[in-house]
Amino acid sequence: MAAPSHPPTPAPSQPSKLSIQRHVHGKRVLVVTNTTVAPLYLEKVTWALTHDNPNVSVESVILPDGEKYKDMDTLMKVFDKAVESRLDRRCTFVALGGGVIGDMCGFAAAAFLRGVNFIQIPTTLMAQVDSSVGGKTGINHPLGKNLIGAFYQPQCVLIDTDTLNTLPDRELASGIAEVVKYGLIRDAPFFEWQEKNMSALLAREPSALAYAIKRSCENKAEVVAQDEKESGLRATLNLGHTFGHAIETGIGYGAWLHGEAVAAGTVMAADMSYRLGWIDDSIKKRTIDILDQAKLPITPPEAMTVEKFKSIMAVDKKVADGLLRLILLKGPLGSCVFTGDYDRNALDETLRAFCKS
Amino acid sequence: MAAPSHPPTPAPSQPSKLSIQRHVHGKRVLVVTNTTVAPLYLEKVTWALTHDNPNVSVESVILPDGEKYKDMDTLMKVFDKAVESRLDRRCTFVALGGGVIGDMCGFAAAAFLRGVNFIQIPTTLMAQVDSSVGGKTGINHPLGKNLIGAFYQPQCVLIDTDTLNTLPDRELASGIAEVVKYGLIRDAPFFEWQEKNMSALLAREPSALAYAIKRSCENKAEVVAQDEKESGLRATLNLGHTFGHAIETGIGYGAWLHGEAVAAGTVMAADMSYRLGWIDDSIKKRTIDILDQAKLPITPPEAMTVEKFKSIMAVDKKVADGLLRLILLKGPLGSCVFTGDYDRNALDETLRAFCKS
Repeated sequence: MAAPSHPPTPAPSQPSKLSIQRHVHGKRVLVVTNTTVAPLYLEKVTWALTHDNPNVSVESVILPDGEKYKDMDTLMKVFDKAVESRLDRRCTFVALGGGVIGDMCGFAAAAFLRGVNFIQIPTTLMAQVDSSVGGKTGINHPLGKNLIGAFYQPQCVLIDTDTLNTLPDRELASGIAEVVKYGLIRDAPFFEWQEKNMSALLAREPSALAYAIKRSCENKAEVVAQDEKESGLRATLNLGHTFGHAIETGIGYGAWLHGEAVAAGTVMAADMSYRLGWIDDSIKKRTIDILDQAKLPITPPEAMTVEKFKSIMAVDKKVADGLLRLILLKGPLGSCVFTGDYDRNALDETLRAFCKS
Repeated sequence: MAAPSHPPTPAPSQPSKLSIQRHVHGKRVLVVTNTTVAPLYLEKVTWALTHDNPNVSVESVILPDGEKYKDMDTLMKVFDKAVESRLDRRCTFVALGGGVIGDMCGFAAAAFLRGVNFIQIPTTLMAQVDSSVGGKTGINHPLGKNLIGAFYQPQCVLIDTDTLNTLPDRELASGIAEVVKYGLIRDAPFFEWQEKNMSALLAREPSALAYAIKRSCENKAEVVAQDEKESGLRATLNLGHTFGHAIETGIGYGAWLHGEAVAAGTVMAADMSYRLGWIDDSIKKRTIDILDQAKLPITPPEAMTVEKFKSIMAVDKKVADGLLRLILLKGPLGSCVFTGDYDRNALDETLRAFCKS
């Protein structure tokens, strides 16, 4: 993050302060954050934006915390604040928080006056390794996740791993689900590194966290640079997400964290890949083991029935002309495909294996 | 418009039908229209989309008619219909109606699943000469017009001047306000043509309407091609709109038609330009005369006070770092500037001259 630990007595040349100020356009900033993060970091970020920089003024809007508030009503609070504050096209929106805040602030920045400057300051591992990078923004519809939004790139993403010191264990594990994903879909050496260093990550060893974040962002940036608008390759970043989004929608937004749902979804995707004969048993087993070691769920919640999965997955963004395409593992560790060309029986078998009804 | 007059017995090679089908992506279409236009044209458009084309299925959502429904609640009805119909990324949204429908459908298309294909079928003169071309989409905020939206280009704009046969006189005049604008800001010969042909336009002579629409679209396309995101030149298309938007917001959306507010705003901009010494008296007079001849308002409504204008104009999208920039006429007929560099007294004088308090 851009803010130093002790705002009152910084060195004037503090690089973190300069790094954020350099990316602000215009004289007005709107920080979008939530009730959990604001008491911890809003003052520090405001200081970093305004110190030695009297021309800049900062407004903030503090949203309720949680996936269940990632909706149009809450988004309107950002527009209300921006309009009431008379912000103009030269302003900058700053997302200070986790993935929900980043996605909502980004979409608000994309749509306010048809687009203003936007900076991401992710404060959760989930946002640092995944959602803050790549420009996917949006909100949920009651019937499906992230169905309304925009591709809109931030001017920059500022990551301070110190913010992870205040992150609850469950949230940390949630982010690890996405770290595991990069290993599985495209980076076998990174997966093997995770297998060796999972206890260091869970113990929040700074060097382990820093390496996991750096390697994750590199993987994500490489994929997004090749396919920003998700015509193909980028979809592979959604390993486990079709099942996972169905879980999030099916049991009510916020009941499970995003990474928890993705973890169970990743196990289901690995199971289906194995049933198709596309991966050998050891990759499926290693997938389950590493997620289990991270204390993430490896089965969906009991409330999820086969029918519930099917009806929600039918509105997934990866459906094309009625055909559900999935990201599945195929080949050696670190390889996957994005395809609608698979045996439907394997999907049915996986759903039946993981659901009680 | 794409639909022929007699859907049941068309020639198979009907060019209008082919022209819309060629621009549809995928197999699913959502037509967004309103309660006024749907009874007139929805069946024809559905026919044009599906005739000889059994793979395509058409859904529709019929919104209430009017500027006061250009809001987030109404926009959500489009998303609700799209999600409930399980439309996917390969679908096409079709805007069938005037400027409000085009702006809302376009923004919905930009945001649904982060962007789907989109066709404009404008049925009002206003939409045919201005709003359907150029990719500005959006909705109003209670405190200001078009404050939430996206730049999102339609795949194509299909114009059938026959739809103007069902357009009320007041709506026709509203569109003429934008036609006059093109003459004033950049096309003196077109303005002179309008002075000679205004009665033909008001009498809806097909060749006059066709020429006015063609020349307007050409002017708009030339400007937008040079400056899609409105970094400068494109703003000149907003002559009279800063005053006009203030009128629309100030007296409540829908009380005046957009073009009516723009007409009064254009007279105010001409008045201010004259006070600044930037145009001579004859241009101001010809501006008032042509708008008056089109039976458009040439003064703002009585409810608009100086203070009301000022407070609403302060949130206009063309404010930059607190400075209100305006489009003003300058030089010979057909010339204008977009600038924040003008004597504030001239603005005050214009507001006082046009407002009773």
